[in-house]
Amino acid sequence: MNNPSAPRKPFRRLLLTGAAGNLGRQLRAALAHWAETVRVTDIASLGQAAAHEEAVQANLADREAVHRLLQDVDAVVHLGGISVDAPFDDLLEANIRGTYNLYAAAHKHGVKRVVFASSNHAIGFHPVTEVLDADSPLRPDCLYGVTKCFGESLSRYYFDRFGIETVCLRIGSSFEEPKNPRMMVTYLSYRDFIELVRCSLFTNRVGHAIVYGASDNAVKWWDNTKASFLGFRPKDSSQQFAERFPPSAPTADRDDPAQRFQGGAFVIGEPMERAR
Amino acid sequence: MNNPSAPRKPFRRLLLTGAAGNLGRQLRAALAHWAETVRVTDIASLGQAAAHEEAVQANLADREAVHRLLQDVDAVVHLGGISVDAPFDDLLEANIRGTYNLYAAAHKHGVKRVVFASSNHAIGFHPVTEVLDADSPLRPDCLYGVTKCFGESLSRYYFDRFGIETVCLRIGSSFEEPKNPRMMVTYLSYRDFIELVRCSLFTNRVGHAIVYGASDNAVKWWDNTKASFLGFRPKDSSQQFAERFPPSAPTADRDDPAQRFQGGAFVIGEPMERAR
Amino acid sequence: MNNPSAPRKPFRRLLLTGAAGNLGRQLRAALAHWAETVRVTDIASLGQAAAHEEAVQANLADREAVHRLLQDVDAVVHLGGISVDAPFDDLLEANIRGTYNLYAAAHKHGVKRVVFASSNHAIGFHPVTEVLDADSPLRPDCLYGVTKCFGESLSRYYFDRFGIETVCLRIGSSFEEPKNPRMMVTYLSYRDFIELVRCSLFTNRVGHAIVYGASDNAVKWWDNTKASFLGFRPKDSSQQFAERFPPSAPTADRDDPAQRFQGGAFVIGEPMERAR
Amino acid sequence: MNNPSAPRKPFRRLLLTGAAGNLGRQLRAALAHWAETVRVTDIASLGQAAAHEEAVQANLADREAVHRLLQDVDAVVHLGGISVDAPFDDLLEANIRGTYNLYAAAHKHGVKRVVFASSNHAIGFHPVTEVLDADSPLRPDCLYGVTKCFGESLSRYYFDRFGIETVCLRIGSSFEEPKNPRMMVTYLSYRDFIELVRCSLFTNRVGHAIVYGASDNAVKWWDNTKASFLGFRPKDSSQQFAERFPPSAPTADRDDPAQRFQGGAFVIGEPMERAR
Amino acid sequence: MNNPSAPRKPFRRLLLTGAAGNLGRQLRAALAHWAETVRVTDIASLGQAAAHEEAVQANLADREAVHRLLQDVDAVVHLGGISVDAPFDDLLEANIRGTYNLYAAAHKHGVKRVVFASSNHAIGFHPVTEVLDADSPLRPDCLYGVTKCFGESLSRYYFDRFGIETVCLRIGSSFEEPKNPRMMVTYLSYRDFIELVRCSLFTNRVGHAIVYGASDNAVKWWDNTKASFLGFRPKDSSQQFAERFPPSAPTADRDDPAQRFQGGAFVIGEPMERAR
Amino acid sequence: MNNPSAPRKPFRRLLLTGAAGNLGRQLRAALAHWAETVRVTDIASLGQAAAHEEAVQANLADREAVHRLLQDVDAVVHLGGISVDAPFDDLLEANIRGTYNLYAAAHKHGVKRVVFASSNHAIGFHPVTEVLDADSPLRPDCLYGVTKCFGESLSRYYFDRFGIETVCLRIGSSFEEPKNPRMMVTYLSYRDFIELVRCSLFTNRVGHAIVYGASDNAVKWWDNTKASFLGFRPKDSSQQFAERFPPSAPTADRDDPAQRFQGGAFVIGEPMERAR
Repeated sequence: MNNPSAPRKPFRRLLLTGAAGNLGRQLRAALAHWAETVRVTDIASLGQAAAHEEAVQANLADREAVHRLLQDVDAVVHLGGISVDAPFDDLLEANIRGTYNLYAAAHKHGVKRVVFASSNHAIGFHPVTEVLDADSPLRPDCLYGVTKCFGESLSRYYFDRFGIETVCLRIGSSFEEPKNPRMMVTYLSYRDFIELVRCSLFTNRVGHAIVYGASDNAVKWWDNTKASFLGFRPKDSSQQFAERFPPSAPTADRDDPAQRFQGGAFVIGEPMERAR
Repeated sequence: MNNPSAPRKPFRRLLLTGAAGNLGRQLRAALAHWAETVRVTDIASLGQAAAHEEAVQANLADREAVHRLLQDVDAVVHLGGISVDAPFDDLLEANIRGTYNLYAAAHKHGVKRVVFASSNHAIGFHPVTEVLDADSPLRPDCLYGVTKCFGESLSRYYFDRFGIETVCLRIGSSFEEPKNPRMMVTYLSYRDFIELVRCSLFTNRVGHAIVYGASDNAVKWWDNTKASFLGFRPKDSSQQFAERFPPSAPTADRDDPAQRFQGGAFVIGEPMERAR
Repeated sequence: MNNPSAPRKPFRRLLLTGAAGNLGRQLRAALAHWAETVRVTDIASLGQAAAHEEAVQANLADREAVHRLLQDVDAVVHLGGISVDAPFDDLLEANIRGTYNLYAAAHKHGVKRVVFASSNHAIGFHPVTEVLDADSPLRPDCLYGVTKCFGESLSRYYFDRFGIETVCLRIGSSFEEPKNPRMMVTYLSYRDFIELVRCSLFTNRVGHAIVYGASDNAVKWWDNTKASFLGFRPKDSSQQFAERFPPSAPTADRDDPAQRFQGGAFVIGEPMERAR
Repeated sequence: MNNPSAPRKPFRRLLLTGAAGNLGRQLRAALAHWAETVRVTDIASLGQAAAHEEAVQANLADREAVHRLLQDVDAVVHLGGISVDAPFDDLLEANIRGTYNLYAAAHKHGVKRVVFASSNHAIGFHPVTEVLDADSPLRPDCLYGVTKCFGESLSRYYFDRFGIETVCLRIGSSFEEPKNPRMMVTYLSYRDFIELVRCSLFTNRVGHAIVYGASDNAVKWWDNTKASFLGFRPKDSSQQFAERFPPSAPTADRDDPAQRFQGGAFVIGEPMERAR
Repeated sequence: MNNPSAPRKPFRRLLLTGAAGNLGRQLRAALAHWAETVRVTDIASLGQAAAHEEAVQANLADREAVHRLLQDVDAVVHLGGISVDAPFDDLLEANIRGTYNLYAAAHKHGVKRVVFASSNHAIGFHPVTEVLDADSPLRPDCLYGVTKCFGESLSRYYFDRFGIETVCLRIGSSFEEPKNPRMMVTYLSYRDFIELVRCSLFTNRVGHAIVYGASDNAVKWWDNTKASFLGFRPKDSSQQFAERFPPSAPTADRDDPAQRFQGGAFVIGEPMERAR
Repeated sequence: MNNPSAPRKPFRRLLLTGAAGNLGRQLRAALAHWAETVRVTDIASLGQAAAHEEAVQANLADREAVHRLLQDVDAVVHLGGISVDAPFDDLLEANIRGTYNLYAAAHKHGVKRVVFASSNHAIGFHPVTEVLDADSPLRPDCLYGVTKCFGESLSRYYFDRFGIETVCLRIGSSFEEPKNPRMMVTYLSYRDFIELVRCSLFTNRVGHAIVYGASDNAVKWWDNTKASFLGFRPKDSSQQFAERFPPSAPTADRDDPAQRFQGGAFVIGEPMERAR
């Protein structure tokens, strides 16, 4: 399948979960350079698989399916699950049971490296006037954020107990461009996101690492000094979009939680009920 | 039901989950002094209800049942769920879904104080040569411990978002007496356990607090200075049982994880599969 | 004046400011044991001077008067000034100009040790769920507290610049007995207060020290470990008054600042205007 | 007064105190871009007011005058007062009473943002071999520095009590160019000073922030990581003046305080008496 | 040799170096209870060996001799070497070469536990107004102290590399009674010293631990919280000798290093030359 | 000897030990610009002395020779001794006795500044997933590293006792270019090394400083923020050699200490015996 005259790629096979999502689509092209084979999976349709890809539509809550996904895999980039706030029952299946299935299968199949898409919503209840680092306490700002805390704790256990290394990416706002003033702070360009995944996969030893995913924006809420062993240096900045958000006097409502906390509007969401 | 001439008790109604378990049984008598009515619940049979008790057998994974439990309640002592390692599917229902149901119902019914039985297994992968405090990072030593980390994160969210205060009790080993040398360190006498719950219920403001549950034993792995606003001062010590564990030379196997880590034998357990 | 056959007392002359106040009166007897002569001063009437006392009524805002007070003095216990919230103009004279005068005169007259009555109101805007130590940041809860912060900064300068040592006593509530539930935490018995002053005067080197003044009460907001070089060990506890404040369920108003912050009702005071 | 076709400026009216001083003059031009109207004030003559300016000569120690200054103002840049060491009585009026008047008036008139010119002399008794950040303890190096500590404590109180946000700028040496080797470290170019004020005014939430004012000089005594939520990134460096201070062997006098401490020659000043 | 009917003692054979010194003599009796055989060694004469003792006069700088000492030993209490300041050449042989020989031999002979008599002089250049713990930086106050720092670093290496556990005892002043006011702070009663060694030998895992050796004296410079996993709780206090050092006003000489630093008079010693 | 018309150089005479070694050779040219006279010394042959040089072949273990070296010297760059792991007896002479001789002579001859080549092997037993700074605890990874810890402790003593300032350079890998993937992290270009020595010599006050010697490489294990008062800013990066170490999947052996710890292969060396 691979051109025999081409140089060997560093990984034999990588697994990408959540491959049909916004960030998953960004990564697919990059992964082609890093692995002979990329197994892409999502609960949604994955579109046309490239020559180097194995596309497997699957539900992470399905234990057997997840065990099959982890077979013969060198490392995992785990973006799968729900990435917005949602009814708890849905989060439970996708983010709690799904992530457990992933680690249980990684253990069984001897996979030793996971890059886990955690989220800034695991720490969104810290005020915007505080600068966090890898040791800042968890402060989830929604049930979705709580499930990301679960993923961080679970992966810590699998590292301490079985030596499975994980880099937890507390991703800010990774979109084409910032959509509001808060995202001027949390913006992570696609290029920087890909670079962050690259560092997380290729650094020889990562242990169980916590790193914040933001570009080199002017305002910073997060300090990655303690993760500098990963070698991640963002190249982009939200400053290129500065003119879209002209300077304005501070907002009048002192007590608006959506202005006071890093999680923004998430912190005023209500836990959702699932329609039945 | 209550003697009209007796002085009023501080709480109108307390809810005790896990009331049929080892620690639940210890608490039932004490709660009688603190509340006019004690609603006791468990998945197992609760035996004969006392005059001041409302006994309700219920499964915490049953959302409707839990909502009924939280009605007209001033505060909750939440000991329910599974308190040993178990298959993940079981832990998911009892400790994750169950604890979520409890907080969702507390929010709905305006309950503002929870005393949550977390566990030393939320931090059991710290070495026995380290002294922890409330800011020590989570290091669960088994899947059960991971679900206790979930409970701590979830309760933090309900505090930051809705002002529901929780004291997370990282209980050591609360039994009649220490059963092995490790428990000489982790022992929490029943009397001290009850006192710890008392402090957690009556302190006027607790925010979201982390406190370790151990008696005043000679060897200490945990330092409660940061929780001294709770006023908890243990009165017992495992030293009264010292003669059962005569001094011995350090064990020969340097690398035995069960000797190296605070969680003891838990740290070498394997995740369990549920029999089908 | 002193009995020639009596053993010499350690200090030749001590100055006590604020000697007519509540705490000043407690100290007068004790100081008799420590110094041949005790110069007592206050803006109010000092009553009958004892044989070993020099009583000087004076206003600390009066520079010349203060310079006279500091002559031939070995050390100062500075309780003078206003010890409740008050109009800023009054605080400015008594606590800011007065304390400056005191240190300027101490410098001029070669006095090298001051025991300064700071206050818990210098840190009263910390929440009741936090345990403070000598390095906790200043959080004054009223203008009075702000002037105590001034005294702490000023004395730090005189230490760094001129080697005048000061122990800043962040006194809790030093009264005959606790008057409300908050004082069960902040209570400093008169006996413990005197012992704290004794340690502050006799410890050979104190540098510029911060120490909290509370008895060995059950609930603790303040940790004096960093000041353990002073040797202060309280002997009393507010527990002896526990029956006056029977246990009660936490108060309903979650957001009441007087319940949430260590300063209690001070934190909701309004800056006062001086009647004209 | 304003060109109706020009875009609206973010602030309606800003107040600049100390507008006739060295730094005040630098700011006047910049403020024109940020506010429709700039009220400039100083105890000294303000020269010709520009079209967008309201010039008010006033003494900050005059309470009524200060209350008039704060009327209808969105935010304040408070550079006023004495900015060198001076007799205490003068500092008391200008920096203590003056700053109190400013905050009392801000509270009364609903002003919610102050940019306060604190000073490196609030921390100048730290040695030159220590790198400070926002949590470093106060170490004033002169009475002037003590009054800046007062301003920091006072503004903290007004933030905790009334939600008035302040950015305390611990300004290094903001002049046309460095005048001595110490200023190679403490230099803050005028351009970087203006940028620092801009960040302090426009960041939506600042709480009560401490930030050091230095350009991107080679040698750094101050680390602004904890204030990175302000987005301040200096663009200049004292290195452009390096050739004026050719390398020299360390000075011989090991114990010279002016060489050992960050405050430089300030630390050996004597408290001044006011001529009478 | 041992009474066959007596219960077995926990250790088969312990090695005690420095057994003829002040503290070594205190320990000999205690060790009889803990080990079947105690090998005692010193460069000086050891007197009469008890029935359970093997007495070996030896120089720790003699590699072959040290290797013989370590044969068939379960654990070592290493008090040997020079315990006062001395010419560097002497310290080099006794404390540097001697301690290296001990660890090299321990490694070769599979000994896995050492109790190492470090000293407060490894940290004596900290001021008396600072409270230290196990993480405080090294500040030796004399060449002797520097060699104790060497022993701590060397033992750390042998732990990280070969798993040889060491408890470094930073012993204060262990004598019959305090000889001067400084020793009121640093006093370690013989009984508490023996208890400290007992905890260091019997705690199942100690890793590489730092613990301060002082009784429960009123004034404390050292906080052993981080070593509370050893279970050391002193039972004595220097307070029983308080009347010998009556209270006195602070000494006049502000700058006397022997008063300012924890090491006392050691800090003003000069490095010694060895007589030739 | 020096051109009378040339500008005076900042130092009169510098001493460079280890001048014949790899790094010593790099420095000789640079020192010519900084001092009128450079005294170069080594145990090995020094080659041809330049016009401004005094070449003295000497053994640092020879006390008399070292005292002669320190005469009439302004400052020392101490690179001498053994810079790889070696038998302890050799390290003892070269690095322990040699460094002691150097400081004893510096004290006797009034030399007040030493730049000391410590090593990353003083902290090499920290894992590669941790970022260290100047306060990280010592973790030597070999006997050579232990002797560097000795040099750091010894120089701290000479600073606290006699005011001799030292900058301890924890040099990474200073070679022409990185020789293996680990050196991509630890690489210090010769140019950056020289700059680091320059900052250490010319900064007016350095106290006793710890600074890591690495270029501005992508991956960082060491954070020099606390030493930013030295003004060291590396200009090079190992990234220019990145193509030599193409990306590869993490190595399979999880437990290989040479991969897990910063010291690399040093951490698995065995203490060496000296051939006889």
